[in-house]
Amino acid sequence: MPIAIHPRIDRLQPYEAGERPEPGLPAIKLNQNECPYPVSPKVSDALSRLDPDLLRVYPDADCLALRTALAEVHGLPPSMFLCGNGSSELITLVFRTFVGEGDTVALPDPTFGLYAVVAAMYGAVVRMTPCDSDFRFDPEALASGRPRAIVLANPNAPTGRFVEAERIESLLRRADCLVVVDEAYADFAPPGTSAIRLTERYDHLIVLRTFSKAYALGGARVGYAVTNPRLIEAMKKGKETFSVHALSQLAAEAALRDAAYVRECVARIGRTRERFAARLRAREWDVVPSAANFVLAAPPAGGLSARSLYGQLRERGIFVRHFDTDRLRGMLRISIGTDSDMDALLDALSRLG
Amino acid sequence: MPIAIHPRIDRLQPYEAGERPEPGLPAIKLNQNECPYPVSPKVSDALSRLDPDLLRVYPDADCLALRTALAEVHGLPPSMFLCGNGSSELITLVFRTFVGEGDTVALPDPTFGLYAVVAAMYGAVVRMTPCDSDFRFDPEALASGRPRAIVLANPNAPTGRFVEAERIESLLRRADCLVVVDEAYADFAPPGTSAIRLTERYDHLIVLRTFSKAYALGGARVGYAVTNPRLIEAMKKGKETFSVHALSQLAAEAALRDAAYVRECVARIGRTRERFAARLRAREWDVVPSAANFVLAAPPAGGLSARSLYGQLRERGIFVRHFDTDRLRGMLRISIGTDSDMDALLDALSRLG
Repeated sequence: MPIAIHPRIDRLQPYEAGERPEPGLPAIKLNQNECPYPVSPKVSDALSRLDPDLLRVYPDADCLALRTALAEVHGLPPSMFLCGNGSSELITLVFRTFVGEGDTVALPDPTFGLYAVVAAMYGAVVRMTPCDSDFRFDPEALASGRPRAIVLANPNAPTGRFVEAERIESLLRRADCLVVVDEAYADFAPPGTSAIRLTERYDHLIVLRTFSKAYALGGARVGYAVTNPRLIEAMKKGKETFSVHALSQLAAEAALRDAAYVRECVARIGRTRERFAARLRAREWDVVPSAANFVLAAPPAGGLSARSLYGQLRERGIFVRHFDTDRLRGMLRISIGTDSDMDALLDALSRLG
Repeated sequence: MPIAIHPRIDRLQPYEAGERPEPGLPAIKLNQNECPYPVSPKVSDALSRLDPDLLRVYPDADCLALRTALAEVHGLPPSMFLCGNGSSELITLVFRTFVGEGDTVALPDPTFGLYAVVAAMYGAVVRMTPCDSDFRFDPEALASGRPRAIVLANPNAPTGRFVEAERIESLLRRADCLVVVDEAYADFAPPGTSAIRLTERYDHLIVLRTFSKAYALGGARVGYAVTNPRLIEAMKKGKETFSVHALSQLAAEAALRDAAYVRECVARIGRTRERFAARLRAREWDVVPSAANFVLAAPPAGGLSARSLYGQLRERGIFVRHFDTDRLRGMLRISIGTDSDMDALLDALSRLG
């Protein structure tokens, strides 16, 4: 007797993450926006002085030490933070807690593909608001048509475009619904981009953050939501109790407390990004201005297509991202690695003609 | 404008896990069925020789190395395994993938409280089949009334009662629906209890396992499902992509490959359990025979109530579990720690009269 798969899953086109290179083979991995620099030495120290009981017993479901550290850094009470298994768990949790079958969810187009996948899983109707021809997105435009929720990434992915917090505030004034701002890449953006300080004044705002990018903890799976305690408590009810690993709580706290290290990594990545973007432009690539740790760029017309470059780079052990949608088909999204990673990529591109 | 919380969450009574003692205070923790012995030295070794890149880059979403090790141990193909963030993530995933609004889910009563919480979150109707007066449960009885799914724990929690795999097979022959057997405690049960080998023959069976109990990895959050590849693929579509931490995949694989160590821990816990149960019985406690790493036991009539003992032990830094339901109110569920943990508990009980 074949077991029926629920339509919410059966019809789902799952999110496809960037490919992992074959373990053991040399590779330059520029397809998941990971930090090219190792975690802070303070994280390695904390893990090497590990209480072995941390593995044996259940972790603190409330992530109290980490939330306390986050509260200090952001100058908000710990009750305004919820930690999760990467911001991806928190994206699911937002839909689970606030979005029902048939509700409309407004997204910019393009944006991070996971939002539409999770929306579909909860039976929501996705309404896309196209970015302009330079991939700039208009947060206020998302508010029209009374959606149940607006989800946007700032800086946006996979474009790297950002807007100032004032634009988010103007959206908040206009929107009569939940507004979720995913700030996975905000550490790389100019000061004044983050909407976190607005969570105190706007009860319909949830900001998401992650330790997977600037904090070099993609393997540790820690993200957090910042919003008012009422929404935090609601999300907590539906959350997997122990989803944040004990070692990850420790690693994230140590990483957060080494602000100088993350600032230095972010600055290096920013310098490499501008250097790399300039070199691509010198080769007549069209590069979208980025405030994140990646660039979206189109190869010059008349040469190899983006899809073909993607495949040929992959054969040479260089992994970048290609999205097969109308808007993005002609472009590559390239994570910013070290200068030498980017030189190797430029070198390979030269040889591919 | 107050954001509406979806009824699936608003009406939810969330699962309450056992309390964590205040960090830094001396405590004997017998309330979450954790292993009292440290992880295998092979796990500590593996973590101390850690490639620091494991923290930096996203983990293997497919947990291939761990699934390959599981496949070897169980003699089944890797395509029959799905790893998750503890078996709790997999319980949620089973409901997400196979259970819809209004579907009936059959559970024994009592059983692990999380099943009914997740069922409620997916709008399912829970039908409880009471265990007999000795807390024995009748797997076949769960099949009546054509539920969408049957979920049971074997050994059952919080009773410790188990049935042989033959009884599960008899249920599988009778049941025209999904059958989920949570084997979180099967490592502690007599050989012949596990239904894993039945997954090859019965396409409507999902077996869940965890590394949180016998493998002493409660802090690492790794569980797995065993079933046919069709159901594995369906569950994978709705799963959080990177929910299993990179270090946890490594730790679980190392723990699994040290079978001698886990056998020794399990044997010690079994000896302590029988010694402790005998001492409780000698004090006229009513102890449910257990095949797990805990016992459910009622203090003698005429003395302090279970609830009062729970509170007074807690004040003395000894944490056990008390469930405030009609069936369980008169009992305590006590995890099996070391002999000295159990002696400290017996000693405290003596002093409480």
